[in-house]
Amino acid sequence: MASQRPAALLFDVNGTLFPADVCAAAFRRAGLPGSAVEVWFARILRDGFAAQLAGGPHVTFRQLAEHHLAGLLAEHPVSPRVVGSRPSVQQAVEQVIAAWCTADLYPDAAPALRSLHVAGLKLAVLTNGSADTIARGVLQKAGLEGAFTQLMDIQGAGAWKPAPASYTYASQQLGLPPDRIMMVASHPWDIYGALQAGLQACYVQRDPGDPYPVFLAKQPQLVVGSFEQLAAQLAG
Amino acid sequence: MASQRPAALLFDVNGTLFPADVCAAAFRRAGLPGSAVEVWFARILRDGFAAQLAGGPHVTFRQLAEHHLAGLLAEHPVSPRVVGSRPSVQQAVEQVIAAWCTADLYPDAAPALRSLHVAGLKLAVLTNGSADTIARGVLQKAGLEGAFTQLMDIQGAGAWKPAPASYTYASQQLGLPPDRIMMVASHPWDIYGALQAGLQACYVQRDPGDPYPVFLAKQPQLVVGSFEQLAAQLAG
Repeated sequence: MASQRPAALLFDVNGTLFPADVCAAAFRRAGLPGSAVEVWFARILRDGFAAQLAGGPHVTFRQLAEHHLAGLLAEHPVSPRVVGSRPSVQQAVEQVIAAWCTADLYPDAAPALRSLHVAGLKLAVLTNGSADTIARGVLQKAGLEGAFTQLMDIQGAGAWKPAPASYTYASQQLGLPPDRIMMVASHPWDIYGALQAGLQACYVQRDPGDPYPVFLAKQPQLVVGSFEQLAAQLAG
Repeated sequence: MASQRPAALLFDVNGTLFPADVCAAAFRRAGLPGSAVEVWFARILRDGFAAQLAGGPHVTFRQLAEHHLAGLLAEHPVSPRVVGSRPSVQQAVEQVIAAWCTADLYPDAAPALRSLHVAGLKLAVLTNGSADTIARGVLQKAGLEGAFTQLMDIQGAGAWKPAPASYTYASQQLGLPPDRIMMVASHPWDIYGALQAGLQACYVQRDPGDPYPVFLAKQPQLVVGSFEQLAAQLAG
C-alpha cells in the first residue's frame, strides 16, 4: 500500500457492519417478500442521494424509510382475511428499525474490530442512517461501543454520503486530516465519495455481484473480502 | 393552477414515456427473474446520483447499466447445462437496450402528446439515459419524433438529473426561462430536482406505491394519473 498507514478507520454501518437483510423477517411479518428489502434499501439511498443533489432542506433516512415501506405495502396488498393481522406502516417501520438495532455484526467483524482497536487505530462510524439508534445499538450488543471514539451520522454532517461535505465533517470531528482516515464500506459509492474527499478507503466486497467499478476515476487502496483480511493488513 | 401556462413540456423518458419493465423479457432470456429489472434500474440511478454527488468525471448510464447487469448475472448463476445458451453480459446489455429502443409508449401517451403539440406547446425530452438511441427510437416508432423540438440527455448537460445544472442546461437549450418549462416525469426525484431548478413540474403517478413525498420542500403544480389527464389540463 503506497499510502501512509491510517490513524483512524471510519466505518459505514448498514450493510457493512451487518447484512442489510437482517430486517427480512420483519418484512415477512408485514406480508412483504424478503426480497423486497433490497428494493427498499436501494430506493431509500437513490432518493436520499437525489434530495441531496437537488438541494433544499435535509431529508432523513427515516423519512424515506417510512415513505418507501408504505409504498411497498401498497404494492403488495394482502388478502382481506389477513388484513387485520398486518402491522400498520408505523408498526412495520418500528419492527424493521428494532431488527436493525439488535442486529448481530458479521461474524468476522467483532474479533477484527478488537484487533484494530488494540493495534492503536482510532475507530469511528459515519452512517446515512442514525448513529444514536442503529450504530450504537449494534455496537453495544456486540460489546464494542467502548472501542469506538465517535458515532457520527449525516444529520450531524448536514449532507448525505457520498457528498464530500459528509466526509469532511467526519474528518473535522476526528481532528485528523482526510488522508490519515480510511473509510471502510461495502458500498462502492461510499468508497468513491470518501476517495473524492481525500480519504483513503477499503472496499469490503462481500457480494460477488458488486465488484468495485473499474470505470470510476479513483480506486480504493484496499479491497478485502472480510474484516479478518482488513485486520490482517492493518493490525498484523 | 397558480403558475403561468408553460410554453414547453420537458419529458423524462425511461419509466415516464414507457414502462421500465419493457426489458423484463430480455432479462428472462438472460436467465434473470423479471423482478430483477427494478433492482437493476434502482442500482443504476442510485450509483449515477452518487457519482454526481461525489464529483469527478461524468459516469454514463450505459457504464452503470453494464456493470449492474454483470452483477445480477453473477448473483443469479444458471445450472451448468444451460450456461451455453445464456447470453454474455455484452449480449444481454444489447438485448435490453434493443428492447428499450423499440418500446411501445404507454397507450395514453401518443394521443396526448399529439394534442399537446397541436395546442402549440413545445415538446422536448431530458433523459439520464441516451437521447440518440432510446428517446429517438421510441418516438420514431410511435411516429412522434417530428412533434419534439429537442431530444436532450445528461451527457450534453454534463450532470445527472436531479442536479439543478441538468435542468438549467435544458432551459438554455430550449431558449426559455425555467419557469416557462414544465418537467413531466413518473419519478418524484426528477420532479423535485426540476422544482429546485425553478421549473414547473407535473408528476405522472402510475404506481400506487410511489406517491410524491409530502415531506419534500417543493410540491409539483400538477399530479396526474395518465398523459390523458395532462392533455386535458393543458391542451383542453
